[in-house]
Amino acid sequence: MTPSFKTSIGIIMGSDSDLPVMKEAAKLLDELKVSYELTIVSAHRTPDRLYNYAKNAKDKGLKVIIAGAGGAAHLPGMVASLTTVPVIGVPVKTHALNGVDSLYSIVQMPPGIPVATVAINGAKNAALLAAQMMGLTDKVLQDSIETYRKNLEKMVEQKAQQLEAMKYKNYLKQM
Amino acid sequence: MTPSFKTSIGIIMGSDSDLPVMKEAAKLLDELKVSYELTIVSAHRTPDRLYNYAKNAKDKGLKVIIAGAGGAAHLPGMVASLTTVPVIGVPVKTHALNGVDSLYSIVQMPPGIPVATVAINGAKNAALLAAQMMGLTDKVLQDSIETYRKNLEKMVEQKAQQLEAMKYKNYLKQM
Amino acid sequence: MTPSFKTSIGIIMGSDSDLPVMKEAAKLLDELKVSYELTIVSAHRTPDRLYNYAKNAKDKGLKVIIAGAGGAAHLPGMVASLTTVPVIGVPVKTHALNGVDSLYSIVQMPPGIPVATVAINGAKNAALLAAQMMGLTDKVLQDSIETYRKNLEKMVEQKAQQLEAMKYKNYLKQM
Amino acid sequence: MTPSFKTSIGIIMGSDSDLPVMKEAAKLLDELKVSYELTIVSAHRTPDRLYNYAKNAKDKGLKVIIAGAGGAAHLPGMVASLTTVPVIGVPVKTHALNGVDSLYSIVQMPPGIPVATVAINGAKNAALLAAQMMGLTDKVLQDSIETYRKNLEKMVEQKAQQLEAMKYKNYLKQM
Amino acid sequence: MTPSFKTSIGIIMGSDSDLPVMKEAAKLLDELKVSYELTIVSAHRTPDRLYNYAKNAKDKGLKVIIAGAGGAAHLPGMVASLTTVPVIGVPVKTHALNGVDSLYSIVQMPPGIPVATVAINGAKNAALLAAQMMGLTDKVLQDSIETYRKNLEKMVEQKAQQLEAMKYKNYLKQM
Amino acid sequence: MTPSFKTSIGIIMGSDSDLPVMKEAAKLLDELKVSYELTIVSAHRTPDRLYNYAKNAKDKGLKVIIAGAGGAAHLPGMVASLTTVPVIGVPVKTHALNGVDSLYSIVQMPPGIPVATVAINGAKNAALLAAQMMGLTDKVLQDSIETYRKNLEKMVEQKAQQLEAMKYKNYLKQM
Amino acid sequence: MTPSFKTSIGIIMGSDSDLPVMKEAAKLLDELKVSYELTIVSAHRTPDRLYNYAKNAKDKGLKVIIAGAGGAAHLPGMVASLTTVPVIGVPVKTHALNGVDSLYSIVQMPPGIPVATVAINGAKNAALLAAQMMGLTDKVLQDSIETYRKNLEKMVEQKAQQLEAMKYKNYLKQM
Amino acid sequence: MTPSFKTSIGIIMGSDSDLPVMKEAAKLLDELKVSYELTIVSAHRTPDRLYNYAKNAKDKGLKVIIAGAGGAAHLPGMVASLTTVPVIGVPVKTHALNGVDSLYSIVQMPPGIPVATVAINGAKNAALLAAQMMGLTDKVLQDSIETYRKNLEKMVEQKAQQLEAMKYKNYLKQM
Repeated sequence: MTPSFKTSIGIIMGSDSDLPVMKEAAKLLDELKVSYELTIVSAHRTPDRLYNYAKNAKDKGLKVIIAGAGGAAHLPGMVASLTTVPVIGVPVKTHALNGVDSLYSIVQMPPGIPVATVAINGAKNAALLAAQMMGLTDKVLQDSIETYRKNLEKMVEQKAQQLEAMKYKNYLKQM
Repeated sequence: MTPSFKTSIGIIMGSDSDLPVMKEAAKLLDELKVSYELTIVSAHRTPDRLYNYAKNAKDKGLKVIIAGAGGAAHLPGMVASLTTVPVIGVPVKTHALNGVDSLYSIVQMPPGIPVATVAINGAKNAALLAAQMMGLTDKVLQDSIETYRKNLEKMVEQKAQQLEAMKYKNYLKQM
Repeated sequence: MTPSFKTSIGIIMGSDSDLPVMKEAAKLLDELKVSYELTIVSAHRTPDRLYNYAKNAKDKGLKVIIAGAGGAAHLPGMVASLTTVPVIGVPVKTHALNGVDSLYSIVQMPPGIPVATVAINGAKNAALLAAQMMGLTDKVLQDSIETYRKNLEKMVEQKAQQLEAMKYKNYLKQM
Repeated sequence: MTPSFKTSIGIIMGSDSDLPVMKEAAKLLDELKVSYELTIVSAHRTPDRLYNYAKNAKDKGLKVIIAGAGGAAHLPGMVASLTTVPVIGVPVKTHALNGVDSLYSIVQMPPGIPVATVAINGAKNAALLAAQMMGLTDKVLQDSIETYRKNLEKMVEQKAQQLEAMKYKNYLKQM
Repeated sequence: MTPSFKTSIGIIMGSDSDLPVMKEAAKLLDELKVSYELTIVSAHRTPDRLYNYAKNAKDKGLKVIIAGAGGAAHLPGMVASLTTVPVIGVPVKTHALNGVDSLYSIVQMPPGIPVATVAINGAKNAALLAAQMMGLTDKVLQDSIETYRKNLEKMVEQKAQQLEAMKYKNYLKQM
Repeated sequence: MTPSFKTSIGIIMGSDSDLPVMKEAAKLLDELKVSYELTIVSAHRTPDRLYNYAKNAKDKGLKVIIAGAGGAAHLPGMVASLTTVPVIGVPVKTHALNGVDSLYSIVQMPPGIPVATVAINGAKNAALLAAQMMGLTDKVLQDSIETYRKNLEKMVEQKAQQLEAMKYKNYLKQM
Repeated sequence: MTPSFKTSIGIIMGSDSDLPVMKEAAKLLDELKVSYELTIVSAHRTPDRLYNYAKNAKDKGLKVIIAGAGGAAHLPGMVASLTTVPVIGVPVKTHALNGVDSLYSIVQMPPGIPVATVAINGAKNAALLAAQMMGLTDKVLQDSIETYRKNLEKMVEQKAQQLEAMKYKNYLKQM
Repeated sequence: MTPSFKTSIGIIMGSDSDLPVMKEAAKLLDELKVSYELTIVSAHRTPDRLYNYAKNAKDKGLKVIIAGAGGAAHLPGMVASLTTVPVIGVPVKTHALNGVDSLYSIVQMPPGIPVATVAINGAKNAALLAAQMMGLTDKVLQDSIETYRKNLEKMVEQKAQQLEAMKYKNYLKQM
């Protein structure tokens, strides 16, 4: 299987404190051999950087943008308003409101400007979704995703067999 | 501009009571000249239909699936678990919980199986997102989306000019 | 008292990470001498396994199914849609939303397909409920449940007596 | 098909203002030819009536109790504490809190005393669940439930065909 | 000041796991020299004990009952339904829902049967409220409450003076 | 039965828009023949009036204060901070947040200053609670409350009998 | 009293559908004789207009900006990120989430970029707050605000007197 | 740059337990060289102190008041009702309700009495907002704020460069 290295995804986050969550997106794209760039763009502290990043995304060749943010979490929606490149939003869990604030701010976009929202802290799924989008025209990537899925399935089935064989008390001991 | 009629999107909903919400997706795809099929698939009342729909989606040539559902709202997530075609979920507003139940059920998917979630009742944005995905390799469609966006922008600017010219009391009278 | 070993309950969960919660169901069924099988079935990662499990439940002789899941938590509802064996759903507590997502996804089923939902992390009560259902025609089991209840009652009464006798300061010290 | 008139279910509600919701349980049991009694028992205004109702339920031959209540909604849980007959709780939608209060009060029972909770206003599903429980030993009733389910499935499939044939604009007109 | 030992308050809780919260009520009544009894009464595990406790409260001379409970938290409301002695409810913080379930279950009582609800884990305030009620006809107790309040006020004023004098950095160091 | 006209309760509300809710307290006190005064005191628009009202409450002979407010709803808590007369808070339902804001603002008082909180819009129960407090030393009033309770009980029992006799379809028609 | 017409406030909103809410800000500023401009700026549909509006606000002489928006509601926060002119945010009530989405999106700003948030639909208070800010150096305006407050107070006191004089039944009739 | 030491801000909090949150306001004002006083004022435990503080605020020369409180959190709103000096409210995170109670109590003020609310625990932003208000007529302070903002922007840009240069795995190691 030849890696599909021409493809390109932008991963951005509002603060480096989001990196422990957002790194999961990078890891999955590494695994699927999808090229990406990763950086920090703060909607509120670096609005000019946000405008430049979003306005240039298409010309730079970005096909999908993954944007993670917490709290008021304007980053995904504002990027989406400045480009027609599809934007996937990752609501990051917050200290006081557990990410409900981030989720509402990201998902409740007005008609005309969608953000594809995934679960709170769901950076891995953001990467998978981005890969699925790019896979629409990349057979090799599509196959990688199918393989990834089959492996997931196998892993659950193996655990199920183990649990059935060992009985739950022993299974819990070795967890 | 020639319509891009080769493209194909599946719009499904859990019940015909979701149609007044989900029709907005169809209307927008009509406007963007993106072909689609639209039907009812109930995760709970027709699980075999769901299974068949999702398993055959790829072979039928569906590129993106838009699934709307309310309450327990398992439709988008279960379709996503049965195909690697990207799935966009529309949480439909519900009587008692206002769609918070639908939103949580659709967006909080586990790692491995993403659903691209839009706002509660956000069927129009689901269609736009689907079009953006398809536009990744369809220059004509991409241009249609850019045009759509510019028109949105113009419409707001015109309203702003009107409001500034008429003053708010008169503007309110003619609303 | 002779154990009622003919009876049979299926306990399933979406992931082995739910086992520390779901093991409480198994423990109680052990205590009540109700036979059960316990395994992992992921609605999203192993949808075929889910279909097979649910479709074969009745023929396999399962009388009640206890299904635990967290987040989008489609497992109980999808099993319920594929069999008429009664399904009890256990919403598992989640990291960001504390299990409110799991609860809403499990309890808010549409008319036609019920899931008997218990408290967040309420696996023990799921087992009791299953036993009560099976006890409808199993006098021995019914007696076991009555005994279980009486013991619960006695335990509370003993603690009450202790607390009254020791006064709260001493009682707190020995907790 | 001979009706299974020996079976017996108790439907109770906290107030006659819950009747427009709870009547759906009665209607479904009528349809499935399951016998039932229906009355008002207020946990707070008639605690002695509650006590007597629950304590006598088993001797009266009740196999399952369906209890609907709104707000503090103590009825299902208190009945469950006074009998080992399985209790199904229906959280009734409330004016200020939309039934979230009823749901939490009914579903969050402590270990030892389960209430099988259905959706907010889910009286129809409470009846189905009760029928499923009784069907564990009533082959005729079991068949009725299977038939009910198949009819549900057919109804959705017919609507789907209609919608596909008529296109959504016409379908909406005739709704 | 002579203690007002004739007065009598009942403090009950659904489980001994509520004692670390409910002990605050006892401590404050000790401080105010108001006599009380303290025990465990579980609405769900010991319903007969609940009935007896509540039915006898008045004859035993209880003037106010303080009832703490978590989760479904039916204890305060059910006691209130079985006696006209005023009942103060303390919603105990819970693991999954942080006590919102307890709060809704206790405060949302139907017309006719009030429970005087205090803050989540607010056992100290329950005791103060009980003392204020008893103080309606006990001048000595009334004075104790006034003194308690004045001491509270002084304590805050002293802290304020300290903070102003020490500046916040030093104040934080000695906290 | 001679009315107990010496007793006296203060009913206050933050705005005359709360009167349709708060009048229920007055109506019940009329029924129980408990004397009261009723007026408007806005914590935010008339803070001096609030200050004077609360500071003079005791000397004026008020035994209990019932305070209703919506939104930020500071009235009950601020009155409670300025007097040791027991304060009962009625959270009034609000337009956007349905009274959850009012409930949290009223019930979540800090240690030292309790407010006896009743249900959202629970003005009738506030009056009953006030009567119960006053009844601690007023045998006539106590009897009135017992009678009120018995009538409530009878009313429910009569409705139950009617419903059982008429069957639910006819009962619904005459509602 | 001479009007303070040199002062200048910008009122913006995300859509003309917010005008029925936001007009209250304009009306109050009219009443206080504070000059303002009012227009539509959509963060998502007209991001360039937003950028220009915010970047030029200071040079245009705007002293305070009032920004109202609903749903994802990025407008106030994004304006705040592009200027140091103080921004007051008005969360507009929404269809599905009642404005909780708007409130969280506006108030939960990250450290460094504040938005002064008022109540859901609280446009009038936004105007008052803006006036208070401008009044810091405008004695005439400060006096107007004091007068406004005193009138509010008088109005409540008059209503209170009326209610006390008329008794609540008559007062309700004339409301 | 000469410090603008004439300006003056009052920082108050309901309890010294709020100091670890509220000290952030003091630190930022120190950084911006804005003079302030800081003390404890409890709305509920020291209502007279609250009245005096708020009534004298203007004469003492306070230009803005920052008030932090948790739970019922009446402090900011009550101060606002007693003075026309602008009040900024900081909702402090609470144990059970995570500060949602504080937020609702502070932000949902009635028309006529605004509180400028910032994020839960957002004391730093409260200070910035206060500085922005004072900067309306203090060019030196305005420049300090602009500098503060530019430094924020630079800090984010530096982190972004570092992250891009080091790649995320190395960046995470040195965090």
